[in-house]
Amino acid sequence: MPGLVNTHTHAAMACFRGLADYLPIMQMLQEHIFSVEAKLNGSMVYQASLLAVAEMIKSGTTSFCDISLFAGDVARAAQESGMRAWIGEFLHDSPAPDHGEAVSGFQNAEELFTLYDNHPLISVTVCPSAVHTCSPDLLKNLRRMAEKHDALYIIHLSGTGEEVNGAKERYGASPLMQLDTLGLLDGRVVADHCVMLTDAEIELLARRKVKIVHCPESNIKLVSGIAPVPRMLAAGISVGLGTGSSGAHNALDMFGEMNWAAKLHKVHSLDPTILPAETVLEMATMGGARVLGAENEIGSLEPGKKADLIVLDLNQPHLTPLYNIPSHMVYAARGADVIHSVINGRVVMKNRVIATLDEGKIVSRIGLLGEEIKKMRG
Amino acid sequence: MPGLVNTHTHAAMACFRGLADYLPIMQMLQEHIFSVEAKLNGSMVYQASLLAVAEMIKSGTTSFCDISLFAGDVARAAQESGMRAWIGEFLHDSPAPDHGEAVSGFQNAEELFTLYDNHPLISVTVCPSAVHTCSPDLLKNLRRMAEKHDALYIIHLSGTGEEVNGAKERYGASPLMQLDTLGLLDGRVVADHCVMLTDAEIELLARRKVKIVHCPESNIKLVSGIAPVPRMLAAGISVGLGTGSSGAHNALDMFGEMNWAAKLHKVHSLDPTILPAETVLEMATMGGARVLGAENEIGSLEPGKKADLIVLDLNQPHLTPLYNIPSHMVYAARGADVIHSVINGRVVMKNRVIATLDEGKIVSRIGLLGEEIKKMRG
Repeated sequence: MPGLVNTHTHAAMACFRGLADYLPIMQMLQEHIFSVEAKLNGSMVYQASLLAVAEMIKSGTTSFCDISLFAGDVARAAQESGMRAWIGEFLHDSPAPDHGEAVSGFQNAEELFTLYDNHPLISVTVCPSAVHTCSPDLLKNLRRMAEKHDALYIIHLSGTGEEVNGAKERYGASPLMQLDTLGLLDGRVVADHCVMLTDAEIELLARRKVKIVHCPESNIKLVSGIAPVPRMLAAGISVGLGTGSSGAHNALDMFGEMNWAAKLHKVHSLDPTILPAETVLEMATMGGARVLGAENEIGSLEPGKKADLIVLDLNQPHLTPLYNIPSHMVYAARGADVIHSVINGRVVMKNRVIATLDEGKIVSRIGLLGEEIKKMRG
Repeated sequence: MPGLVNTHTHAAMACFRGLADYLPIMQMLQEHIFSVEAKLNGSMVYQASLLAVAEMIKSGTTSFCDISLFAGDVARAAQESGMRAWIGEFLHDSPAPDHGEAVSGFQNAEELFTLYDNHPLISVTVCPSAVHTCSPDLLKNLRRMAEKHDALYIIHLSGTGEEVNGAKERYGASPLMQLDTLGLLDGRVVADHCVMLTDAEIELLARRKVKIVHCPESNIKLVSGIAPVPRMLAAGISVGLGTGSSGAHNALDMFGEMNWAAKLHKVHSLDPTILPAETVLEMATMGGARVLGAENEIGSLEPGKKADLIVLDLNQPHLTPLYNIPSHMVYAARGADVIHSVINGRVVMKNRVIATLDEGKIVSRIGLLGEEIKKMRG
């Protein structure tokens, strides 16, 4: 089948997975993550990103779209792994509450475009963090950068009540309306999360051809809410699926994410026929490709497209008998069922052994990094 | 770690997994399952149960509690697998709408007690299907059977609005109040699902020491609702975790079920600290043991208890670094991470190879059965 497209990650956060996740998110960030993140360096981001790409390959993802500090180090890990990746530097000029020192990263972002100009697998993106953490000037400057390089403009949008309230306090408008007032909404924009939207905002997103990333597990674990995905799809919006940070919901397994997306909206709408398996599978493949503007390259197995594909072992108790392939892929299969992965025509995993990376070394190194992180936190 | 305890299964339904699951449950049952189920025989139940026990062993379950037609054939499969199992014949005298011919099975149930008298791994239970499908006489007769054999009395309870309305129409009382009126509620009772409960009913369940099984994924996929588990735990009720039928939600993987239980109640209550990983892990181990009245035998690794334990390979990208074991087990681990399983001191799986069953043969046979089922449905 086509490889899965994870349209929203913060890969390097894999090194924080399970760290104090019994706390509400802001408390977790303030008491455990920010102090460590302030000491984060490119080498740590590189190591943690290697871990994340290994996890993604082993669970059937062939493309991912990442936002990170030290994004160049994420790109380096992605390049080594042979994965297809969209990489952007996490940019803001107004730190989130108690975030510590703001990181500008504007220069990093420009350099990335030079480094990965015309790269066959890595595309560089422009990633303002969110409306309430970026001044109108920064948002507009970054927009010019995106236009100059014909790059995606990716932003967290209406993912939490806090974010929506932050924008309303600062600008008297919801994050989406503020972006529209600034004239920044169009088909270049990828909006991540989109949990809190009014019907009028869904209409506006559709009219402006903005693309959306749905991250159900992250939204649920952080109790942000449930994005109105069935309404967005009905409005004709392109929706991809993303795991978000594994620091937030602990897994980068897109099979798990499909399972959550498919079942969650059923109980939420009390309609067992909503978001059928086919729709969710499409969201994780062609939907993701569309969100990334790569619908002519990836997302399906067709002549003329890149060879990004995965092979699952269906010959297992939990996948037998086989009546309906989409149902099995969404409700019964797990990342561990993927045995081979081919990306851009290259065999990246064979019989669950990653050909491009030394998995054992990555895991043992990150084990040591975890010990360091525990100390840094203290 | 201790093996996982799946406190509610219909193992043989594994042969229906993914069959027309895009339809609402009653339509799926009426148009696809009942016609096949009417032709179900012991041999099919045996084969499908072998498939289910293979899936359960491979995903870390060491004990399960099953309700089935032809329960003797489920017991046969369980016995061959070396799993610990509670087995009961599915009994009712008032068929569910369009169920076709009612199956009495009373005799089957009695025979099971003789066959598995003092068996080290198989315990026989008494399983009236539900209040709206069993006459008061049947409920009371089965109660006497349970008392005679000192067995658990297991019943689907308030799992769907349809069931609650059915009982109210028939008896003018909710299923729970009807059971209480009949004097049948006490510590012998295991109530499955319990989605629709009032606060007064939760109090009553606690007072009567009834045990509860929570089946989040099944309840969600079938849009039955979300059981008030945090309130049940606060009332001091013993709650176990169960997958229910893999015909309903497509997997018997208790790691997946833990993940759903932990995250679902967070977004439902909008409280990110509710049902922490420790609580959910407890529900899937000691909680299950308590529900089955086996808290002195299984559910934890302690001197004097049976050796039911599993070993996971933590040395993998998605489980590194390790900060908090319960968080990893609930949010990041998958059934496929279990490499060894020991049940009652016997190695049942080693390096993911099941020692007690011929997995390849089971899978290929059930593939053929799937083809037959497709024809039977047509």
